[in-house]
Amino acid sequence: MADSWVDPAEGLGADLHLELSGPGGRRAALTRALREAISGGRLAPGTRLPPYRSLAADLGVARNTVADAYAELVAEGRLTARQGSGTRVAERAEPLEVRGRVSEKAPPRARGPRHDLRQGTPDVSAFPRAAWLASYRRALRRAPHKAFGPGDPAGRIELREALAEYLARARGVRTEPGRIVICSGFAHALRLLFPAVLRGPLAVESYGLAFHRELLTAAGVRTVPLALDEDGAQVGGLAGERAVLLTPAHQFPTGGPLHPVRRAAVVDWARARGGVVLEDDYDGEFRYDRKPVGALQGLDPERVVHLGSVSKSLSPALRLGWMVLPERYVDEVLAVKGAREAWAGVLDQLALADFVGSGSYDRHVRRMRQRYRGRRDRLVGTLAAHAPHVEVTGIAAGLHAVLRLPPGSESSTVEAAVRRGLALDGLAEFRHPEAPEAMTAPDGLVVGYATPSEHAYGAALEALCAALPPP
Amino acid sequence: MADSWVDPAEGLGADLHLELSGPGGRRAALTRALREAISGGRLAPGTRLPPYRSLAADLGVARNTVADAYAELVAEGRLTARQGSGTRVAERAEPLEVRGRVSEKAPPRARGPRHDLRQGTPDVSAFPRAAWLASYRRALRRAPHKAFGPGDPAGRIELREALAEYLARARGVRTEPGRIVICSGFAHALRLLFPAVLRGPLAVESYGLAFHRELLTAAGVRTVPLALDEDGAQVGGLAGERAVLLTPAHQFPTGGPLHPVRRAAVVDWARARGGVVLEDDYDGEFRYDRKPVGALQGLDPERVVHLGSVSKSLSPALRLGWMVLPERYVDEVLAVKGAREAWAGVLDQLALADFVGSGSYDRHVRRMRQRYRGRRDRLVGTLAAHAPHVEVTGIAAGLHAVLRLPPGSESSTVEAAVRRGLALDGLAEFRHPEAPEAMTAPDGLVVGYATPSEHAYGAALEALCAALPPP
Repeated sequence: MADSWVDPAEGLGADLHLELSGPGGRRAALTRALREAISGGRLAPGTRLPPYRSLAADLGVARNTVADAYAELVAEGRLTARQGSGTRVAERAEPLEVRGRVSEKAPPRARGPRHDLRQGTPDVSAFPRAAWLASYRRALRRAPHKAFGPGDPAGRIELREALAEYLARARGVRTEPGRIVICSGFAHALRLLFPAVLRGPLAVESYGLAFHRELLTAAGVRTVPLALDEDGAQVGGLAGERAVLLTPAHQFPTGGPLHPVRRAAVVDWARARGGVVLEDDYDGEFRYDRKPVGALQGLDPERVVHLGSVSKSLSPALRLGWMVLPERYVDEVLAVKGAREAWAGVLDQLALADFVGSGSYDRHVRRMRQRYRGRRDRLVGTLAAHAPHVEVTGIAAGLHAVLRLPPGSESSTVEAAVRRGLALDGLAEFRHPEAPEAMTAPDGLVVGYATPSEHAYGAALEALCAALPPP
Repeated sequence: MADSWVDPAEGLGADLHLELSGPGGRRAALTRALREAISGGRLAPGTRLPPYRSLAADLGVARNTVADAYAELVAEGRLTARQGSGTRVAERAEPLEVRGRVSEKAPPRARGPRHDLRQGTPDVSAFPRAAWLASYRRALRRAPHKAFGPGDPAGRIELREALAEYLARARGVRTEPGRIVICSGFAHALRLLFPAVLRGPLAVESYGLAFHRELLTAAGVRTVPLALDEDGAQVGGLAGERAVLLTPAHQFPTGGPLHPVRRAAVVDWARARGGVVLEDDYDGEFRYDRKPVGALQGLDPERVVHLGSVSKSLSPALRLGWMVLPERYVDEVLAVKGAREAWAGVLDQLALADFVGSGSYDRHVRRMRQRYRGRRDRLVGTLAAHAPHVEVTGIAAGLHAVLRLPPGSESSTVEAAVRRGLALDGLAEFRHPEAPEAMTAPDGLVVGYATPSEHAYGAALEALCAALPPP
């Protein structure tokens, strides 16, 4: 930040807040104020001060008054003046008084584990920087002035149009832009829906992300576990719930698809009971053995809320997702979103509209599909060669796989991995705390094979094999 | 969106979801699936279909099967095939079945008023597109891979460092990056603080933004009005409240600064009672008659929460703001923010860090200061010439001014303005609903002189003069 001052050649200067008060003249007051700002740490070592004329104009004092004050502080060793680089706070000035909290320049957790196979993150080294920048540039150039004003809680129409076309084409979603609401990801969507628009209890798969369950609990929504088997969630077990949250394309985390008969059954349930199905389409684009199963929403757009985001396909850092809503919820969701006002950034929305509309999104998804398919094949091949007793379960899809372990070996395997510097989760992490014994899945590891960068994947797989229990 | 398909020359194709099921062979199934996708509106007129080889590979069928299906639908008039532009859905294909909700291509409100002097928005035509893009490009190039992974609820350290330096220098804020939490604007900050971290009742100025009061009420926080006079909020009237929300630099909307004696008094109150002061520094950079008054937070960083954003200085569309917190609140705020997870986009955060750190933010603020100062001078001059009986009150600062009106004329003046196509608000809009008679300000208009673009400002002023009551 040392170079943050405007170049004096620009003739504008930068803002510097100083109070000129106390005894003595203006020069004395300015000298004192600068000295205190340096001692107190407000002006950090290396900070460049504004040019004389700029500060003088700001403070309403003569240019010489500023020059004299600077000179005095240079004499005191608090400032340094060098031809061409202006006047700066001396590097050996008094240290910043940090009040209580340690500076975070190098937070300890920034180091992280040596090998990371935790699920949930795409390969962040593959973010398509050039294509994204191209979309951002076009979006910024084309944006009407009004785009920089107060926004619309629904999100930019450009993005909703692009998504309506994309989701229909690629995921079989039946919608139009008026039913799409842009949000900041899946968790944000849940918080917009519950409890303001939908009420609990909410049936959820007996295995899922604890973060989502906790978020619902905090919103006063009770979640009820639904058993899983090889055909996915046992939707026949739905009883008095008003809503059910499913991952139909690829159960998270156990990895199977919802059987077609159950897809139809859960929609029938919603129609008969006036219920609603929430479809978490978190990795629907990533299927490797066949074309992806279409969205459940296509079966009945009035009974299914379709939820997606770019968190797995592009990056969770963009904080961009979408809800495709039954007509009757649209106005309520917009009212809730409007009253809370913390919407997704408009320029990123416009950039994503261009990214999707120009085909860059398709290209990126295809590229990542090749990469992740390769990762999964390599995982399967490595296990076949080095740990044939450990089975990879679930369909060839998504950004993670589940390895079945011998009964009773899950927690010791996770611990063995941690000792080798490998971070990953056991299946137990994902189990609903109220799931009865009968709903407990066999021991297993959830392997996020998308998480490492290409060059780090091999070593992570080696660490994994070394941590697995013997046959 | 008609051009959203990937150019076949790219050799990648795009995703198209189709279910091949039902009687007959693959070709019949594909033809039927495409026909239904067109009839049902999933494939809009003009949409370009994937190249044969791409769709064939996706569906696991022969290339000729796709070619035959396309040919059949061309024969039916549902598709068109033209050399060089590929196969597209025919423009006269069946219309999209829009379910209930009308498409929003041209929402009625998009037209808006002819002249807009509503407060709250900077001149959106002045968004520094080129400088922002330059910062975004640099930020994207420099970002470590990890920046594209899961974020930190505190916000990017690059931005917190840049803001710590800027706020100390320009606003007299005493802080370090560890006490800054990035958020999506002022409303988001309020929702993070109340009621999870701070409890009500909350004293607020008797005039302020209804949106903020309503948001607090929705969060279960009672707001108690505090009287205003020529020295600002009467902080001596604080009684049992635990917290007070102030606009010390430039009372919103009445326009005066908080008197230095009261600045000291409210900090003393917070120290004596264990209370906290929330400083809404919404337009602190924009002062035209002298250098801005420093942030109240500088008087006691442990008793004042300093809140700011780029919504007035750059654009509300970026959804970027910050909280500068007393040490004791940092962990609690981060816990609340982490548990809700709808954070500001990381790339915009990094772009703003570069924008501030490179001096572009200072340059932009200075440029807008010149512009808004000119707008205010023109307002004052126009009124002096055409309506000398209408006084401009408040200090020369910010993006709005208050015009004092003859008693009893406020609502009729607003109505007269509306008849002339001029949108603006009367002071009554901002009054706390529980403010007693004694706290009622004289009749007045709140004029957002920053809102129009340069070329539209003159006509807006003319409409304003024409709507004012006679002397």
